[in-house]
Amino acid sequence: MNGFIAVHCGAGYHSDSLKKEYQKTCYVACRKAVEALKGGGDAVDAVEKAIIELENSSLTNAGYGSNLSWEGSVECDASIMNGQTLHFGACGAVSNVWNPISLAKHLCIRQCESLSLGRVPPCILTGQGAKIWAERMGLEIVDDRKMISARAFRNYKHCKRKLKKYSLQNDVRFSPLDTVGAICVDANGVVASGASSGGVSLKHEGRVGQAASFGSGAWAMMSRDGIQPSVAACTSGCGEHLIRTQLAKNTAESLLEPSPVIGLDKCLKEKFLESPFLWDVAERLGGSLALIFNPQVGEGELLWGHTTKTMCIGYMSTENAKPKCVISYLPPKMESGRKAVVSGIPFKVTMQPSPVLQWEVKTEVNLNGSQ
Amino acid sequence: MNGFIAVHCGAGYHSDSLKKEYQKTCYVACRKAVEALKGGGDAVDAVEKAIIELENSSLTNAGYGSNLSWEGSVECDASIMNGQTLHFGACGAVSNVWNPISLAKHLCIRQCESLSLGRVPPCILTGQGAKIWAERMGLEIVDDRKMISARAFRNYKHCKRKLKKYSLQNDVRFSPLDTVGAICVDANGVVASGASSGGVSLKHEGRVGQAASFGSGAWAMMSRDGIQPSVAACTSGCGEHLIRTQLAKNTAESLLEPSPVIGLDKCLKEKFLESPFLWDVAERLGGSLALIFNPQVGEGELLWGHTTKTMCIGYMSTENAKPKCVISYLPPKMESGRKAVVSGIPFKVTMQPSPVLQWEVKTEVNLNGSQ
Repeated sequence: MNGFIAVHCGAGYHSDSLKKEYQKTCYVACRKAVEALKGGGDAVDAVEKAIIELENSSLTNAGYGSNLSWEGSVECDASIMNGQTLHFGACGAVSNVWNPISLAKHLCIRQCESLSLGRVPPCILTGQGAKIWAERMGLEIVDDRKMISARAFRNYKHCKRKLKKYSLQNDVRFSPLDTVGAICVDANGVVASGASSGGVSLKHEGRVGQAASFGSGAWAMMSRDGIQPSVAACTSGCGEHLIRTQLAKNTAESLLEPSPVIGLDKCLKEKFLESPFLWDVAERLGGSLALIFNPQVGEGELLWGHTTKTMCIGYMSTENAKPKCVISYLPPKMESGRKAVVSGIPFKVTMQPSPVLQWEVKTEVNLNGSQ
Repeated sequence: MNGFIAVHCGAGYHSDSLKKEYQKTCYVACRKAVEALKGGGDAVDAVEKAIIELENSSLTNAGYGSNLSWEGSVECDASIMNGQTLHFGACGAVSNVWNPISLAKHLCIRQCESLSLGRVPPCILTGQGAKIWAERMGLEIVDDRKMISARAFRNYKHCKRKLKKYSLQNDVRFSPLDTVGAICVDANGVVASGASSGGVSLKHEGRVGQAASFGSGAWAMMSRDGIQPSVAACTSGCGEHLIRTQLAKNTAESLLEPSPVIGLDKCLKEKFLESPFLWDVAERLGGSLALIFNPQVGEGELLWGHTTKTMCIGYMSTENAKPKCVISYLPPKMESGRKAVVSGIPFKVTMQPSPVLQWEVKTEVNLNGSQ
């Protein structure tokens, strides 16, 4: 079916030497998502497929090639939110699962199921338990070392050495915030969002960041009446700060203001840069990729904003010949972590003849108790 | 110092035979919190001490005596939020830590620290990593079996047997929602909230519920100008549903309406019972314990509301001789999971001569970059 996908591989600092490679990664991720849509997949499938590509790249801090923890292992966070069902699936601090985003997707999808004895399917699974669940779902499980890229290992060694020398120095180069994310709207008007992250370098074992926290890494909410627009957002930055500010949810909701660009700008200013939750944070580094979509006319806007030096994004409609990938820069005079830059582009999606705005229908069925 | 503490040991179904014991548990928890305050502790200390008592009770589904997971182990979630610093510390799916709430408190307190290389202290730790961290903090680590009470083990065996017989039957008796929580305001006007839970019976290993999720299990926000009231809330119910509805945050914010009772009632109706996030949930079971406090006059209101059959709460001011403990019932004609009942009482706290409303001061210091 038709649809529109947008991806990012981090709000942080993308070095000039790797710029092309980052853009290429976003390029391929968009292509994979469009393939999924054209093959009959929905917004959730497209988000998964795009993020699988981003996770598989050794450049990004997600899946393979993630930052190593203090102990030298890879522990990933990932989540997917389906804007139609409002279900959320997340895995946190999980090792050995080649594609954490697929695990998150399975958890999200299975939220629909009824379990015996009043139990409900888990929405967040962590650590060893998450790995066992993934194995049972038939997902690819790999050896610890297979998740470690040469680049991540070099960075790990470097950080550990650095740490001995300068015990309290901050350096963004060694703590890249290049987590990844994707948002999509399909021709049924369904929106979805996903996030995947390897977390900060040298993090403590078991640490869970924004990519596995509800409202923080990914948010999607489909139009419930066909009139109010659908929104989706994913975020990148320091996990702890994105959790406290619930930036994905706040970003998505900010687009509902009369002007989405002004809404996002205001959100990054008031709910992030000036957030009371970050009063003790000197440098407020983060970025959001978001979309707003009007299913009645099949038109939307893609927006991105960040307080980091750069943010690398890509986007594509099923009706485009190829994706567009850009690196967005904070203007040279702006200090990172103190100001935000916001941009956007309009897009169109040719809708299915009768878009499946099933919200109302499903609600009715379920309120009658037939789970 | 002076202060006011309120605790709950679950919104769920408290059997008549154990009613007295539940109330006694709340009674002792309140006393411990008041002892902590009188000994110079602040709101965070009082919340921790109250919840330690609730965790140590074999009656509650928190700490010792928690519901067992599918594999027969105890895995706990707990969190604390400090309404002054707005810091949040949480542990999820952690085993062997005798008092998960103390681990959450340590994580919360350490959010203030600066780490090298741009890293920030973790706010959520899970599984084995959380246990290692607790050990390093000098918290009590016990053998797996020591966390299992005879009652929890009997319940586990019973559930497993039941499961074989009736594969799709819901029965609230075997999935008690008796997680625990506490909220406190001290004589400096500082509010804090904590939650602790063993999760649902027969849960999947690694599952994380509301008590370790930001905005869901515990919320506290202190007056930032000395004029707007301070609020705090903690919740109980099905973890996945409380995560989706972010009930702790929504509850606390709802009290800021002109009438806190009407605010809470509206919140439980609109943001829980009629929440679009629970469209596919037949029975919406949850409860909130919350307070609103005006530091200028030292007066506040304690409120509780639930959609479950019962909710067991206790409260006490340092100026009272003893705690008051009640079991709140849904009126007999109301069907649980479909309607809410809300109650409240006023309380007073004699404030310190110059309450420490340090928010503004701290913000200034930190915006200047002196972390």
